[in-house]
Amino acid sequence: MKKHTVTEIGHVHSPYREQAGTPIQPSFGDPRDAEIHIEPEFRAGLEDLNRFNRIWVISWLDRSSSYKLRVIPYRDTVERGLFSTRAPSRPNPIGISPVRLISVDIEKCLLKVRGIDLLDGTPVLDIKPYAPRFDSHPDDAAGWLDNSQHTQTADDRFEKRG
Amino acid sequence: MKKHTVTEIGHVHSPYREQAGTPIQPSFGDPRDAEIHIEPEFRAGLEDLNRFNRIWVISWLDRSSSYKLRVIPYRDTVERGLFSTRAPSRPNPIGISPVRLISVDIEKCLLKVRGIDLLDGTPVLDIKPYAPRFDSHPDDAAGWLDNSQHTQTADDRFEKRG
Repeated sequence: MKKHTVTEIGHVHSPYREQAGTPIQPSFGDPRDAEIHIEPEFRAGLEDLNRFNRIWVISWLDRSSSYKLRVIPYRDTVERGLFSTRAPSRPNPIGISPVRLISVDIEKCLLKVRGIDLLDGTPVLDIKPYAPRFDSHPDDAAGWLDNSQHTQTADDRFEKRG
Repeated sequence: MKKHTVTEIGHVHSPYREQAGTPIQPSFGDPRDAEIHIEPEFRAGLEDLNRFNRIWVISWLDRSSSYKLRVIPYRDTVERGLFSTRAPSRPNPIGISPVRLISVDIEKCLLKVRGIDLLDGTPVLDIKPYAPRFDSHPDDAAGWLDNSQHTQTADDRFEKRG
């Protein structure tokens, strides 16, 4: 199967140092502030972002372990097919996190965000604007998630072992 | 800057052969059906997906051209910072498309979806469930997009030239 190369464009600076205790989705848990540092060569791409309330942080989940195709997700007690879960350990460990955008400092290439679910140091691959017109579908059924327990923070089940 | 390798896990089979005329977002344009073929080695990961109404198709936008940090997006008439747009030509051309899931054929590793904005043959990197609880934020301000024109299909401005 064909491969492609992705390049880190920045990093997350968050209060979360290990998976246990990290919010499992941006909407949950203690909404602590975090920063996203973008490499200076991409500075001009940050213009016009400041008027958006929310952004997608597309990240490389570098601390996830090797994947299994059936997993017990955080919010469930039985095994589910991996692609029906948001588990971080995946064939391509790409994360999509919709986070509240607090401020944009173009000079410093620095975004302040709230409610991130990513570990400190997580590489960033892309930033996209959150557009309710495209992205918001409040009434869709969400399979097993609709009946799942309300766990809001992670444990270490998907963490890479030393 | 550090690089990582992504591997194609499947492909989109859509009615769209070129960027001009393709819906610019899954929510817009003629909601024609498309298929996603997943490689058989990932079959077990598709279980439990059938009860979701919507999925995220994470794709590699292989027909996008080299990127510019300031672009005139489809829905606007002035230049915007690239990361405030959903333009396909990006440092990492990763697409996130929330599409309606019509059916899942696990035996054939085949997903039928509606309303895709991806060209025929686009490589797929990941499938994630759409979860309104995480992903739906209907009331967020969307910057320049809130005042933009209602163009619903693409032209060829981001297409790779021969």
